[in-house]
Amino acid sequence: MTQIIYGIHPVEEALKSSYIDFLKIFVGTRSPGPALQSLLDLATPRKIDVALASGKTLEQMAKGGLHQNVVALVKETSYAGIEQILSRWKEGGTRALFLILDGIQDPQNLGSLIRTALGCGAHGLIIPKDRAVGITPAVVKASAGATVHLPVVRVVNIAATIDILKKEGIWVYGAAGEASDLVYDLDLDIDLAVVIGAEGKGIRPLVKKKCDRVFSIPMKGPVSSFNASVSGGMVLYEVMRQRNKI
Amino acid sequence: MTQIIYGIHPVEEALKSSYIDFLKIFVGTRSPGPALQSLLDLATPRKIDVALASGKTLEQMAKGGLHQNVVALVKETSYAGIEQILSRWKEGGTRALFLILDGIQDPQNLGSLIRTALGCGAHGLIIPKDRAVGITPAVVKASAGATVHLPVVRVVNIAATIDILKKEGIWVYGAAGEASDLVYDLDLDIDLAVVIGAEGKGIRPLVKKKCDRVFSIPMKGPVSSFNASVSGGMVLYEVMRQRNKI
Repeated sequence: MTQIIYGIHPVEEALKSSYIDFLKIFVGTRSPGPALQSLLDLATPRKIDVALASGKTLEQMAKGGLHQNVVALVKETSYAGIEQILSRWKEGGTRALFLILDGIQDPQNLGSLIRTALGCGAHGLIIPKDRAVGITPAVVKASAGATVHLPVVRVVNIAATIDILKKEGIWVYGAAGEASDLVYDLDLDIDLAVVIGAEGKGIRPLVKKKCDRVFSIPMKGPVSSFNASVSGGMVLYEVMRQRNKI
Repeated sequence: MTQIIYGIHPVEEALKSSYIDFLKIFVGTRSPGPALQSLLDLATPRKIDVALASGKTLEQMAKGGLHQNVVALVKETSYAGIEQILSRWKEGGTRALFLILDGIQDPQNLGSLIRTALGCGAHGLIIPKDRAVGITPAVVKASAGATVHLPVVRVVNIAATIDILKKEGIWVYGAAGEASDLVYDLDLDIDLAVVIGAEGKGIRPLVKKKCDRVFSIPMKGPVSSFNASVSGGMVLYEVMRQRNKI
């Protein structure tokens, strides 16, 4: 299976990673600007085939997205298995940090959350197979290439996956607007999986029941919730802050 | 001048605010579902004219956005003056919190930042007139209605505006990836304006020079930056955390 990545930054980020297999790069111009040229300079040592394509072809491949004259055909991002992210943690020697996303549907939010999770030192991300967006090209782009570096596990049953994590001694804490415990009052310097719910809906009741604790982020004024990727960012920031401080 | 708001949540949020003047609401169905009906129930006491429109008309008004069978015509969000947000702070009796966005171009990011700023208790937002997105309908929608509650000032010259804030005794701290001071090591329980730069570019040098201090958010692994709306969320969360803790 193949996948399309487009836009200078996402393609460049992917080129910097050895995890991603490039099949071909298509460019829309014979005289690339400096940004595109430095991208192509990364492709040369990897002996990736670079071909010229019309603007129309690029547009079709990018499905109307902003391709900035470059589209790459890569082997599809394969999802990781739960064992992989567990051994990534065990081999890493730091406290576990997993992010479980219970039904994120917006590619921008998922991409942003993957980028944030990677930047905050998470060992892996867990998403459900149904009623949620997967790792699409739009997500790869929104992640600014972070999908290449952070293993993502896609599971049928989030609740059952939480049981597996718990057996490994990992605590599972969920973000829930109505919870009385505030995120910064919890000790997050423990082996931890954070659950963030879907946009506007939050965590599903069955998944919430599985959480060891739920917490909220304080909010002022007439706002009922933060954007899902912002909430996730605040929580992962708080984890990082506590761990760096100790 | 008029403006279009579409989608159930944004229209509903706007209806809940007395700040916004509705000229007309267009619905795409004679038999509204429960969400649309509860929205229309809010329109009744305000005596807002509700009319039926074809799906095609709604699509045109929403310019292809997801209108969910409801489009509202409202008086355009007017920008506030700098004096207005200053008096909002002085009358509020809490430490000042302003957010200065130096060139955000993505409507999703601006909307999300307005929603976050409101939820974190900011007194107002400052954006530049040029090379930045203004309060468009896409921004209103991405803000989940927060644009209605948080005054936004649009200025020609951010650097000159920083001088005005400084004269009021407000400290101006800017987020800059290369800064050695970490955000959580700073005392943010002061009268404060936080500056967040443009996507991928950061704060412009002239604006950065005007900042009293610059700080960074720690980051791990192969990530060069967080998404602008996530960075802003982390910083505003940190301000709120420090102020709530004291």
